[in-house]
Amino acid sequence: MELLQLFSVILLLSLFLLADHHVPQASAERSTYIVHMDKIFMPKAFSSHHYWYSSMLQSVKSVVQTSLDRDNLESKLVYTYDNAFHGFSAVMSEPELEALKKSPGFLSAYPDDVVIPDTTHTYKFLSLNTATGLWPASQYGKDVIIGVIDSGVLPESPSFKDDGVLPESPSFKDDGMTAIPARWRGICQEGEGFNSSLCNKKLIGVRYFNEGVLAANPGVKISTNSTRDETGHGTHVAATAAGNYVDGVSFFGYAPGTARGVAPRARLAAYKVLWREGSFESDALAAIDQALADGVDILSISLSYPRRNLYENPIAIAGFGAREKGILVSVSAGNRGPDYASLLEGIPWAFVVAAGTVDRWFTGTLTLGNGKTITGWTMFPAKAIVRDLPVVYNETLSACNSTELLEEAPYSSIIICNITDDNLDFLFLMNDLARTFIPGVIIVSENPSIFEASSFLQPAVVITRSEARQVIDYALNGDTPTATIDFQQTVLGMGARAAPALSSFSSRGPGQGYPGILKPDIMAPGVLVLAAHSPYSSRASIGNNIHLSSDYNLLSGTSMACPHISGIAALLKAAHPEWSPAAIQSAMMTTANPRDNTNQPIKDMGLGYEVASPFGIGAGQVDPNRALDPGLIYNATVQDYINLVCSMNFTTEQTQTILRSSYNCSTPSSDLNYPSFLVLYESQETRTTSMRTFKRTLTNVGNGAAKYKVKVEEPNGSTITVSPQTLVFRRKYDKQSYSLTIRYTTSSEFFSTPGSITWIEENGNRTVRSPIVVNGPYYND
Amino acid sequence: MELLQLFSVILLLSLFLLADHHVPQASAERSTYIVHMDKIFMPKAFSSHHYWYSSMLQSVKSVVQTSLDRDNLESKLVYTYDNAFHGFSAVMSEPELEALKKSPGFLSAYPDDVVIPDTTHTYKFLSLNTATGLWPASQYGKDVIIGVIDSGVLPESPSFKDDGVLPESPSFKDDGMTAIPARWRGICQEGEGFNSSLCNKKLIGVRYFNEGVLAANPGVKISTNSTRDETGHGTHVAATAAGNYVDGVSFFGYAPGTARGVAPRARLAAYKVLWREGSFESDALAAIDQALADGVDILSISLSYPRRNLYENPIAIAGFGAREKGILVSVSAGNRGPDYASLLEGIPWAFVVAAGTVDRWFTGTLTLGNGKTITGWTMFPAKAIVRDLPVVYNETLSACNSTELLEEAPYSSIIICNITDDNLDFLFLMNDLARTFIPGVIIVSENPSIFEASSFLQPAVVITRSEARQVIDYALNGDTPTATIDFQQTVLGMGARAAPALSSFSSRGPGQGYPGILKPDIMAPGVLVLAAHSPYSSRASIGNNIHLSSDYNLLSGTSMACPHISGIAALLKAAHPEWSPAAIQSAMMTTANPRDNTNQPIKDMGLGYEVASPFGIGAGQVDPNRALDPGLIYNATVQDYINLVCSMNFTTEQTQTILRSSYNCSTPSSDLNYPSFLVLYESQETRTTSMRTFKRTLTNVGNGAAKYKVKVEEPNGSTITVSPQTLVFRRKYDKQSYSLTIRYTTSSEFFSTPGSITWIEENGNRTVRSPIVVNGPYYND
Repeated sequence: MELLQLFSVILLLSLFLLADHHVPQASAERSTYIVHMDKIFMPKAFSSHHYWYSSMLQSVKSVVQTSLDRDNLESKLVYTYDNAFHGFSAVMSEPELEALKKSPGFLSAYPDDVVIPDTTHTYKFLSLNTATGLWPASQYGKDVIIGVIDSGVLPESPSFKDDGVLPESPSFKDDGMTAIPARWRGICQEGEGFNSSLCNKKLIGVRYFNEGVLAANPGVKISTNSTRDETGHGTHVAATAAGNYVDGVSFFGYAPGTARGVAPRARLAAYKVLWREGSFESDALAAIDQALADGVDILSISLSYPRRNLYENPIAIAGFGAREKGILVSVSAGNRGPDYASLLEGIPWAFVVAAGTVDRWFTGTLTLGNGKTITGWTMFPAKAIVRDLPVVYNETLSACNSTELLEEAPYSSIIICNITDDNLDFLFLMNDLARTFIPGVIIVSENPSIFEASSFLQPAVVITRSEARQVIDYALNGDTPTATIDFQQTVLGMGARAAPALSSFSSRGPGQGYPGILKPDIMAPGVLVLAAHSPYSSRASIGNNIHLSSDYNLLSGTSMACPHISGIAALLKAAHPEWSPAAIQSAMMTTANPRDNTNQPIKDMGLGYEVASPFGIGAGQVDPNRALDPGLIYNATVQDYINLVCSMNFTTEQTQTILRSSYNCSTPSSDLNYPSFLVLYESQETRTTSMRTFKRTLTNVGNGAAKYKVKVEEPNGSTITVSPQTLVFRRKYDKQSYSLTIRYTTSSEFFSTPGSITWIEENGNRTVRSPIVVNGPYYND
Repeated sequence: MELLQLFSVILLLSLFLLADHHVPQASAERSTYIVHMDKIFMPKAFSSHHYWYSSMLQSVKSVVQTSLDRDNLESKLVYTYDNAFHGFSAVMSEPELEALKKSPGFLSAYPDDVVIPDTTHTYKFLSLNTATGLWPASQYGKDVIIGVIDSGVLPESPSFKDDGVLPESPSFKDDGMTAIPARWRGICQEGEGFNSSLCNKKLIGVRYFNEGVLAANPGVKISTNSTRDETGHGTHVAATAAGNYVDGVSFFGYAPGTARGVAPRARLAAYKVLWREGSFESDALAAIDQALADGVDILSISLSYPRRNLYENPIAIAGFGAREKGILVSVSAGNRGPDYASLLEGIPWAFVVAAGTVDRWFTGTLTLGNGKTITGWTMFPAKAIVRDLPVVYNETLSACNSTELLEEAPYSSIIICNITDDNLDFLFLMNDLARTFIPGVIIVSENPSIFEASSFLQPAVVITRSEARQVIDYALNGDTPTATIDFQQTVLGMGARAAPALSSFSSRGPGQGYPGILKPDIMAPGVLVLAAHSPYSSRASIGNNIHLSSDYNLLSGTSMACPHISGIAALLKAAHPEWSPAAIQSAMMTTANPRDNTNQPIKDMGLGYEVASPFGIGAGQVDPNRALDPGLIYNATVQDYINLVCSMNFTTEQTQTILRSSYNCSTPSSDLNYPSFLVLYESQETRTTSMRTFKRTLTNVGNGAAKYKVKVEEPNGSTITVSPQTLVFRRKYDKQSYSLTIRYTTSSEFFSTPGSITWIEENGNRTVRSPIVVNGPYYND
């Protein structure tokens, strides 16, 4: 358990390093604030909001002008926002902010803060195929535009080329990337190393936003002042969502094959908000605001803003504006797992994505001189020859906790490293080994999966303690014992371990931004996902000093899961242009699979492979082909979301920060028509019995009449009543409502087995499933 | 010069190691002898030569039987030979051999000895193309069978697959590998890890021969007792001659592209005679003997038998039998250069091949922080990221002759190693550097080409001393100097250095086996040739302990040049089935190019890039498309070769060992109708003037009448008279003779500038060129 936490800490650390983010160097007097305004108050004299905000800022400056100011950071407008919400960001002093607060139309303001980026066989694991289902039905996502808010893109990546047709498409004729839809209003913003000719019919637009960075760090030189990706993160995310077909790629021989995005015929628009010099909320807000104006259909946001308050969280605020415009916002859950309530935001109107494993295993085969073979884990990034070498085990050396002993290990031998359970140094072990000249290492571990995020700097393979017994026995008692290790093997499907499993790092609900709705919503592949990357960002090394470059890299993180959902949303949008974001989300959630490929409940790597909770996996693993034809959907209108926000006990200004002035809070309701059910009660010293009733409305999106009967799995210790038990839909788009009442007894324990409600089609095979979670208090350090 | 010798010594050493040959452990009493017999003496009572030889061996055993014998190696028959020549090999004691010598029909006998193996853009460098010339004219060598006498083959190599059609063949329809020609009489001999289903329509036969190994090392266990290749040498040679098309291969990113043999539609038959346990003449003789019976058209022999006497050299002896049967024998010159007379055999009836460079350069780009770029040589086998690192030069450290200093070099920096001219330790330098944790090295060398045979264990690039000036200046005086090195680059054509150049290692004539005919005959690509190889034989390493595997490897050696000529011979045989081996050889020699791709005389890397001598390159670099239509050929019949052997002052038995009993020595002549001219005189203290007249006959192989006029370049110090000066051929196959008289003055110096005779077609563009060499004594240590 502690090992797993260390793992997730190290992963998080590496993700922080990836972003290389700088804490804003608050200028002595002034810093950047994000200001939300009620545009209704804009005087008619102003031809645009921009002038209004400028004038406002000018007036507060003159109000509080001091002689000191001249030597300090100039107060200035950073961005104005008008699509996702109304407002601006500006460099201001505290007195200026106080003055601003008195301006008519002022709603709220908060200091700009930094952002963290969360981090291809997966299409096959998701059963996407060219013969039937969502791919041909959606024409591979044709013409849907996915906006990616991230670190930009490497335009040269072959995943972003716009030529070539689908290598296999039996059921429809692929014309390749056709002309850009006329409704697109974006641009290919020029910048350093990025001229506008680098956009094409796949990568239809790019823009970059770093006024927030510059405001926080005056005088800083932006190293690559364009949408050009410096880390590879944005390239990986964009290529996962909608990369074109690229043959013959691999990560140093692992996961070889054809790379392709989930929606290979969708369009990509890249918005760069992550910079080497820092990453700020004001920039992300500007990007989302612009993406809405440009005309994206789906927003893919693999970033975390660790803000608990929805009215201060840029994705929550700008995402509301997106949802209002019919744009689905897909967001990574974050990589703060495996603790409960490690999911900070939990935005009700964003599709929050957890990360699971893939049915793929990167292996090395250990062959002993006596002919026995064991398949272990390795990702050593080269085809090393470790062949017929003596295999050595002795207790002192094989503890592998002494660099001195390792450096004097027998030359040209394979050393067995039998690491102990409580050895927290497995990553340091890898480094230590790389300093020696040991040509091959067999690492024995109780929990080999902890090595799956590790770099293999040395030719090594990890095997389990039980597998190790015969190896050690052979090394000790064999006649001139030798072994061979073969690298660069990839095992797929049922040959790999059960999948998906919830990754250890994926953030768990309840979401702290709003714990009233079960978050995350769904799980998608996010462990060792292969996609295009920056060849300058090394993800593999040999020894301690040789760092290797690959155009395609295996990355792990909810950042990798999110674009899978974005891509599937694009496919569904192409197949069902009339569906709202809520409908698309419902279709994916009610058809998601809570079981793995062995038909057992999905397990949690962060909980020693116990059954994963909906707080980890939401409704389960996305199943795109089933989502194409969900039968019934839980729809939600903008007014439904308004009602939810109105129920949140925010101040008027906080509410308006999210909803703007157009809202109507006459019917507040926390009972959003959502495809999952959550009762979260406070700690109870004594057991009391309570009751909660939810009302839900289902819309028939099947063709023609249909009848559904309910099937309920009750959460442990709860009784559930559903009324009616049968829903009859007479035609497409018919709506039927039902009520679900949960009677539960409070407890001081947190964990309870979750339940579910499933509407089962009579004379059909559609099922519409929602998880039901009833849980007590959780503790978060 | 000493450096170059060291280089060739190291190369030779590595080739010796490759073969891992064992000196025969002569048994106390008996060892293996190869015995040549005159089959005319075989009594009619014997139904086959096998019984005759067995009976003979039995009778000598009984003659000399002693009590000691029972404890020693049994005398036994190892092989009988009947196709290439008549005879057998047998384990015998010296008294038994003496007794045998008295048997009727005995010709000669000598002890079995060990063999040494000599070690794809090349087709393009040779101008082979799908549109015109030899490839389409020969249908890519369709149905010609090339026998490869070597270390066997790896049957799984994709180069030996028999499916697929030519990726581009505008001028004829390729049917892929069609049914095996009915005339083929070979088999797919089963053995360890090699069942007969592994042969196919490309690899039509395999056999292995190790009775000689077993006889010399009784009780030795053959590690892979089949034609399965253990070293990769035979696989590389066979794939170079006639490998099928294989897409997407490279040597760790260098030389990327489609691999293909010279004759991709020819057939391959592999005969394994090189073993981990030793390699013996008796086995090679058996293999060649069997190949003749099996029905090969071309024999490709990339092996050296360091025997000066032709009547003891298995390739000379068995090769004579092959030539008699119309089979062209192509042989590598050996890797004993760059000294003159390092070519030991010089077999007149074998096509002896020298090794030249290819117009390809493996480079790394060094980019300084100030933007300057320099392209240097590197073969570091991975895409290392060496990016924007500090670049360090200081005189003490940069001598790079102190491991201690290097180990304490600044971390994460690029170090400049300015090695001195007289530093013979460049290979040790590479090893030393690999022990350090220096992420990038710039090696400065007066002669970067010496690094072309070196493994790059560390990310390093080699630049010249003059290029280094600005780098060192920048490192010393730049403002925080940094540099970037990019690896895995391949420069082709005129962008690389002038090519071909004669390799340093290629053995130079005069051939010591018979110095009367200019050898080698021709040059073909033999430096860093990419072809299929054993993935278990590492040819690249990272650091000192990580050895890497590749299915395709870059190898250097005359072993690599020989199969180019074998493949071209197969193409010519397919295009002109009526041509004799002498005609095929003449066509290649008279159209060979003595100039490189800058139209300058081919240079010699072993002589500081001075002009190469015909003793190094023979007639020059093979030009396959010109060889398709040579106009005239110097043909030779079997009787012509007999006349030559008869002129060699051998004893009757020695002569018969080569010629067998069928010979007729009534017209001995050393003036073979050969496409080159050589006068080699003994050392002369005083200058004397001599004269030598050659007679040659040319056959018109052009379609219809033709007229040729002579053009002579006289060797330095010689006068040449040709008569007649014009040759008129009235129809195809017309023959015309001429005489060439050389008047020369002897000198005590060896070197003289060579000359040539070229017959130039009137009203046509055919030229028929032969080199003329007049030389004094040579000294060989």
